[in-house]
Amino acid sequence: MVAEKNIQEFKAGDEIQGFFIVKKIERKLSSNNKNFLDLTIIDQTGEINGKLWDCQPGQEATSPAGSLIKLRGNVNEWKGKLQLKISLIRLANESDGKNIKDFVLSAPLKAEEMFDELYGFVQKIKNTDIKGIVDAIIMASKEKLMYYPAAKSLHHAIRSGLLYHILRMLRTGEKLSQVYTNVNTDLLFAGILLHDMEKLEELDSDELGIAEYSREGQLLGHISMGINRISKVGEELRADEEVILLLQHMVLSHHYEPEFGSPKKPMIPEGELLHYIDMIDARMYDMEDHLKNIKPGEFTQPIWSLENRRLYQSSL
Amino acid sequence: MVAEKNIQEFKAGDEIQGFFIVKKIERKLSSNNKNFLDLTIIDQTGEINGKLWDCQPGQEATSPAGSLIKLRGNVNEWKGKLQLKISLIRLANESDGKNIKDFVLSAPLKAEEMFDELYGFVQKIKNTDIKGIVDAIIMASKEKLMYYPAAKSLHHAIRSGLLYHILRMLRTGEKLSQVYTNVNTDLLFAGILLHDMEKLEELDSDELGIAEYSREGQLLGHISMGINRISKVGEELRADEEVILLLQHMVLSHHYEPEFGSPKKPMIPEGELLHYIDMIDARMYDMEDHLKNIKPGEFTQPIWSLENRRLYQSSL
Amino acid sequence: MVAEKNIQEFKAGDEIQGFFIVKKIERKLSSNNKNFLDLTIIDQTGEINGKLWDCQPGQEATSPAGSLIKLRGNVNEWKGKLQLKISLIRLANESDGKNIKDFVLSAPLKAEEMFDELYGFVQKIKNTDIKGIVDAIIMASKEKLMYYPAAKSLHHAIRSGLLYHILRMLRTGEKLSQVYTNVNTDLLFAGILLHDMEKLEELDSDELGIAEYSREGQLLGHISMGINRISKVGEELRADEEVILLLQHMVLSHHYEPEFGSPKKPMIPEGELLHYIDMIDARMYDMEDHLKNIKPGEFTQPIWSLENRRLYQSSL
Amino acid sequence: MVAEKNIQEFKAGDEIQGFFIVKKIERKLSSNNKNFLDLTIIDQTGEINGKLWDCQPGQEATSPAGSLIKLRGNVNEWKGKLQLKISLIRLANESDGKNIKDFVLSAPLKAEEMFDELYGFVQKIKNTDIKGIVDAIIMASKEKLMYYPAAKSLHHAIRSGLLYHILRMLRTGEKLSQVYTNVNTDLLFAGILLHDMEKLEELDSDELGIAEYSREGQLLGHISMGINRISKVGEELRADEEVILLLQHMVLSHHYEPEFGSPKKPMIPEGELLHYIDMIDARMYDMEDHLKNIKPGEFTQPIWSLENRRLYQSSL
Amino acid sequence: MVAEKNIQEFKAGDEIQGFFIVKKIERKLSSNNKNFLDLTIIDQTGEINGKLWDCQPGQEATSPAGSLIKLRGNVNEWKGKLQLKISLIRLANESDGKNIKDFVLSAPLKAEEMFDELYGFVQKIKNTDIKGIVDAIIMASKEKLMYYPAAKSLHHAIRSGLLYHILRMLRTGEKLSQVYTNVNTDLLFAGILLHDMEKLEELDSDELGIAEYSREGQLLGHISMGINRISKVGEELRADEEVILLLQHMVLSHHYEPEFGSPKKPMIPEGELLHYIDMIDARMYDMEDHLKNIKPGEFTQPIWSLENRRLYQSSL
Amino acid sequence: MVAEKNIQEFKAGDEIQGFFIVKKIERKLSSNNKNFLDLTIIDQTGEINGKLWDCQPGQEATSPAGSLIKLRGNVNEWKGKLQLKISLIRLANESDGKNIKDFVLSAPLKAEEMFDELYGFVQKIKNTDIKGIVDAIIMASKEKLMYYPAAKSLHHAIRSGLLYHILRMLRTGEKLSQVYTNVNTDLLFAGILLHDMEKLEELDSDELGIAEYSREGQLLGHISMGINRISKVGEELRADEEVILLLQHMVLSHHYEPEFGSPKKPMIPEGELLHYIDMIDARMYDMEDHLKNIKPGEFTQPIWSLENRRLYQSSL
Repeated sequence: MVAEKNIQEFKAGDEIQGFFIVKKIERKLSSNNKNFLDLTIIDQTGEINGKLWDCQPGQEATSPAGSLIKLRGNVNEWKGKLQLKISLIRLANESDGKNIKDFVLSAPLKAEEMFDELYGFVQKIKNTDIKGIVDAIIMASKEKLMYYPAAKSLHHAIRSGLLYHILRMLRTGEKLSQVYTNVNTDLLFAGILLHDMEKLEELDSDELGIAEYSREGQLLGHISMGINRISKVGEELRADEEVILLLQHMVLSHHYEPEFGSPKKPMIPEGELLHYIDMIDARMYDMEDHLKNIKPGEFTQPIWSLENRRLYQSSL
Repeated sequence: MVAEKNIQEFKAGDEIQGFFIVKKIERKLSSNNKNFLDLTIIDQTGEINGKLWDCQPGQEATSPAGSLIKLRGNVNEWKGKLQLKISLIRLANESDGKNIKDFVLSAPLKAEEMFDELYGFVQKIKNTDIKGIVDAIIMASKEKLMYYPAAKSLHHAIRSGLLYHILRMLRTGEKLSQVYTNVNTDLLFAGILLHDMEKLEELDSDELGIAEYSREGQLLGHISMGINRISKVGEELRADEEVILLLQHMVLSHHYEPEFGSPKKPMIPEGELLHYIDMIDARMYDMEDHLKNIKPGEFTQPIWSLENRRLYQSSL
Repeated sequence: MVAEKNIQEFKAGDEIQGFFIVKKIERKLSSNNKNFLDLTIIDQTGEINGKLWDCQPGQEATSPAGSLIKLRGNVNEWKGKLQLKISLIRLANESDGKNIKDFVLSAPLKAEEMFDELYGFVQKIKNTDIKGIVDAIIMASKEKLMYYPAAKSLHHAIRSGLLYHILRMLRTGEKLSQVYTNVNTDLLFAGILLHDMEKLEELDSDELGIAEYSREGQLLGHISMGINRISKVGEELRADEEVILLLQHMVLSHHYEPEFGSPKKPMIPEGELLHYIDMIDARMYDMEDHLKNIKPGEFTQPIWSLENRRLYQSSL
Repeated sequence: MVAEKNIQEFKAGDEIQGFFIVKKIERKLSSNNKNFLDLTIIDQTGEINGKLWDCQPGQEATSPAGSLIKLRGNVNEWKGKLQLKISLIRLANESDGKNIKDFVLSAPLKAEEMFDELYGFVQKIKNTDIKGIVDAIIMASKEKLMYYPAAKSLHHAIRSGLLYHILRMLRTGEKLSQVYTNVNTDLLFAGILLHDMEKLEELDSDELGIAEYSREGQLLGHISMGINRISKVGEELRADEEVILLLQHMVLSHHYEPEFGSPKKPMIPEGELLHYIDMIDARMYDMEDHLKNIKPGEFTQPIWSLENRRLYQSSL
Repeated sequence: MVAEKNIQEFKAGDEIQGFFIVKKIERKLSSNNKNFLDLTIIDQTGEINGKLWDCQPGQEATSPAGSLIKLRGNVNEWKGKLQLKISLIRLANESDGKNIKDFVLSAPLKAEEMFDELYGFVQKIKNTDIKGIVDAIIMASKEKLMYYPAAKSLHHAIRSGLLYHILRMLRTGEKLSQVYTNVNTDLLFAGILLHDMEKLEELDSDELGIAEYSREGQLLGHISMGINRISKVGEELRADEEVILLLQHMVLSHHYEPEFGSPKKPMIPEGELLHYIDMIDARMYDMEDHLKNIKPGEFTQPIWSLENRRLYQSSL
Repeated sequence: MVAEKNIQEFKAGDEIQGFFIVKKIERKLSSNNKNFLDLTIIDQTGEINGKLWDCQPGQEATSPAGSLIKLRGNVNEWKGKLQLKISLIRLANESDGKNIKDFVLSAPLKAEEMFDELYGFVQKIKNTDIKGIVDAIIMASKEKLMYYPAAKSLHHAIRSGLLYHILRMLRTGEKLSQVYTNVNTDLLFAGILLHDMEKLEELDSDELGIAEYSREGQLLGHISMGINRISKVGEELRADEEVILLLQHMVLSHHYEPEFGSPKKPMIPEGELLHYIDMIDARMYDMEDHLKNIKPGEFTQPIWSLENRRLYQSSL
């Protein structure tokens, strides 16, 4: 019997059908000289590889990466991994009544709610020059901020990922300022809000959160672009020179090490904190993500983004 | 008129007297072949260099480093720095009624209060094996913990410095666990409480917080010593093997980089957080300390412990 | 005619049969969508890859890695390498009268003889505390020591490899102490005997010498585990503190560089020698192993474990 | 007899007098507790250290660093170096009729002539947007450019040093474009003209070429400042976006390595050339400068700015 | 209709025939267990991959790498790349009247003309000892120099590549000596002429410019071989010792960094220039080569030899 | 009473006289403007600093570094170190009947005996080409080899140090070849004998073992010089090319890492052993030397040549 299931629920032996997004599609030639399609499909719960044997040249173009498809197939186990043998595939059409956004992996909170909470932090800034610059930049970028991923790499490519990252950093920043009470929260919140904002221009992303570097992103990078932006907005608002300078310095130094893109290290405590808050949020996200399917007492495979560490799922 | 002042209050032209601790003392030979004493003295507010011209051979031994002295002298300015020309110096005696501890730079909170707050975190640990190990180690080391500095380097050599460092880390750990709610606070608090505990054995410190490396400290270092200790206490308490292993892993990995002493990087999120909390607290302490006498709009000198960065005192 | 030959004797065109150990086995899908088995088999003389075309799903499970099989097939040359086209394969059974141990690559000396010679070095130790600790650890680990490989990597995965490595190091240590006569041979022999002993727990190995990292091995590593072990055994024997400390220091420092796992470098000459003796033995083994099939005047391929050097077989 | 000589002409035994610039001055205390002045003085031909014994406290303030003084003294040899024993010293006054600029080490060409030649290269730029941006920035900075040194370090602190550096780079760039004929000389000349222009703001220099980092220089550095400047001027001139982007990219990447301040490496051939032209000019200057007083067949001392190399004066 | 085209002109759908050089050829087994040939062929305009399905074992030996073949086939597009499906292939024979040299990618200038220009620089050397050594080495190596590639890597493997590289460096050296007029052009030209001359012995290359390392090349490398050569030739000519020494020093130091093969850094300005001239020429060649097929406004793929930079084709 | 003692026997309070070698001598100016001599003197047992107050300008030239002097003075303790207050000093003269060589720190064995043992190893070489090259080089350098130090640094500057170093390495090499029996002892002994032979030309040393780099040593270094030498001698003897090549390769690679001067790593086992034997001997010498005056249970100061390790004197 054909079942409608999320990818996470697939089991070997299932015959399944349903709607999925094409993440990658390629036509390949088998060694007996026949064409077949090699696809990776995703929904909100996971991803799986599938093959459609004996396809036609050009068929790969009818359901390109990023499109919503309807698909039927059989789930097999192959070297310990599930794989789909696809029997039918077609592009979703209007009469299916499906919205592609419902099939994308997104941040765990709604974009609107995240933005409201984030904007609350803008309003907590007391220095009017700082607040003015941050407000102008955030509002000008709001549309993209609502859906952009946090990074190009597939791994972080979740819808609204950047917004989620900034928001958690703001929460962490507020907590830390309760322990380190000398910290200037105006600078700290502003630094967090602005630090990655030019990723919205460094990457060209579609609504699904799949991103590529832009020309400006390649030649300058989001840090230099951020310096330019703060300079420009700050001058338009005739903001205090020290304010402009410190916000630029925080963005410039937040990657900390030259080889990661920061020509200067933080020279103010708020810049130092910004860096560590950024690291903590990225690492907690990565670790949680890699450990989510690991059983207690077991290790993950070596993880590239964590210097090839293997993580351990404690049984405590 | 002879004034009794804290070192911080000295001004060029003052004639002062009072009680101070000798931090460093050396007899030197002037180039006209005469002996003089070269001293550094401290009180709770700062430190200053002084000279006693025409001393006797052996006089340096009558008020050795670490002793409380009574001293009279004149304050001069020398290359933009104040310096004492000492006229009289003698060891403090019983009839002076002074307690040397009142002259040492100490953590800003009372040791007893800090320990009580710290011990509250021990009691928050729910896993009885973790709690048992932590409790045993903390209580066995309590006496030293009350006064030990956090590091050998003069800079951190404040009385009860280690206690203060651990306490602020616990506060930070608790705050972060409110944002990253998946974190196992038992492991995190235990990791924070234990991570530097063997510094109490790696360093031989006196009550004034001036420390030297012990033989075991040189040959093994506090991390390996910590591994041994957890292993031993854990076995005595017949604690769960996984608990012993994870506590050891957190201590082992908390310096993060091999070249800083950690042969393994954290493989559990709690270990990752432990590292960043340690870094944040050390850096916030260092930065605050170096910036405290800097005027808005000015930079510090290059700071060795911060990779020769100069820090900036913002005017905001 | 079907010949019974060692793998080393195979020639293109042979039809062979015999008993072999499965080192790796995988079912793969050909591009015309058929199943085939891809095997690597070994005996004491070498290893070879083979294919069984048109197998059944699940057939790979009937002769898993580590099992002894009987096999028939034809030897072909494929890109300058020999390969087997397998016609028959089955698990060895009792009536075959074969012992799997006779088919594993082993150290060139018998385990019992190696152990006896090694134990002779234990008896040469004059300091009773050192001797006691070493004796206790060696005897407790004797069973595993008899067959464990020296490393996880396939390359060193010969039966009794660790025993062979330690023995040659002891011989070298004795020779060097005849030139550098100030060296304390008690410490040196003990350091050699103990330095890798916890590899027996860091790795889970079967009798065939195929190893995987254990949980404790991943989270702590054999060096930290060795520190723990010496500490525990030393305390049980109420050994002199200096003895415990120096043995721990030698184990801790024997990898020399932090990035290879040693947080401290050797601070005693015996530790320095231990490191170089370890290096020499590993390198001589590696070089001999890679050069053994190379003709005079030719170079090996780049060798990963030797920083991608190519070795040269001299014609002298 | 008192002679008036250039520093380069001093010989041991001379009694000299003349006008010099104070480069460094400090009051020091001798070990017999007397004040003396320790000065370094310069003229266009070199520098020499001198002592004025038995000075008054405060006397160091009467002829501060950067002032022109009249001085009399005796030249002695001290450890193979000449040194002055100063007998008289006073500030130059109006009636002396001396101009301090005549006593400063300057680039070997006149600033006006160098600027004219440099400006000729601006006029060679054919692309009007590139030319417009370069022209605007050069003309706005012309005043400072006429006298600024090329670097803070004393070594390069020659008057008009930056102008000289840029000019020789332009000459080299033109020569290279005759060999590598595909190079876009508009971009190359513009890159050379702009690459260090914000050093004029990164450093606060006086007319004598003695420089200190500015606040903005410390917090952002001349590369980020240059990015801002090009962005601003380019937008004011409504220049082509590609032009602005490429000029920014060349400035951003001209230090080549992240640890020297360039977050991006050159992605266009003109940027690659800019880097190497910069290196060649700096190195040729440094080498010529260090070799100028070395005899054929001899080596210099190790030179810090050349990774402690010693240079060799060939006898060919 | 079958067309005769250069590889660069191939389009999907073409049926083509013509003469090409085999760069790589391998027989492979398809997963349905059939043999096919996998070839890469080149002509002066480019390279393309092709397959000949259902070949015979041994057929790969009939047209080995380096041979000139006649071939017929169909051009397909495969994953955005063109590929040949080969129908006929045979070795070119005498009656075809083709010269293999006409099908190899060569430097853009004729070898004879390049050599004449190069030799003109030898004649510009005024110092007779320098000239003698250079002349002897160049003339002894002339035959190989006429056709050798500049490097082993496929990328530079153009016929007469080394000659072209040296020539452009000489032109650049002459230009630079017009700006840096203190430079000794005898040394500079000699250094350029000799710096890579032992690559002719380090690599064994055939007339097509396809190279492999020689035994001596592997064990010593072209730099040490060059030192030997200059020493030998110099002594035969009884040249001045200083001349021999400086020429050796320039060759020894021209890679600049120890990890690139230079145990010493340049200690004379001419050696410093030699290094930068070498870098500039290599980089300009590489960049031009990678950019030649890139459209304005687009980026190349990451380029390994340029530290994985992507290059940008400016639209200016 | 004036005692004649070795430096090692000096005690505070002694009045001593005797003959010593001047290692360093400088005239300095005290801050009360008087000249004094600052000397370091050595004998076979150690070294000590001394001062002669109120000397004459030029007096430092009457007993230059390297001369034998007669001296009288008083031993004082100064900051925990002994120091001499010199009352009389004069150059030793013929009538004193002293030989300067008796006052230099030398290797613990006689040069002649060491050379004989060393030459025995030459005679053990069976391959006549290898033996011929080694013999020729050793005999040509014998005179210098008898007294040269092993390194420029003061520390190793003992008379006949290089000879001693080579000899111990030969002993070690012979021992190791008894464990690693596949090693070609002809190559190994030859490699040891030749590896540092050009240090005799890289350094200009006097008979006392005090060395400076020669011109050739600076520009080429002893490794490249060794390559040249073997090449030259080998060709003169018409030795087998493989022999010449392998001896050169061993010398070239014996420093192992590019940053220590070896552009190639060893590609033959004998080269690998040569490197480790060199390391072991250097380290054992260094460690023994630094530990010789340290009491059991104590640490040395950080030692620069051992990466700032402190060594521990075990009490076992």
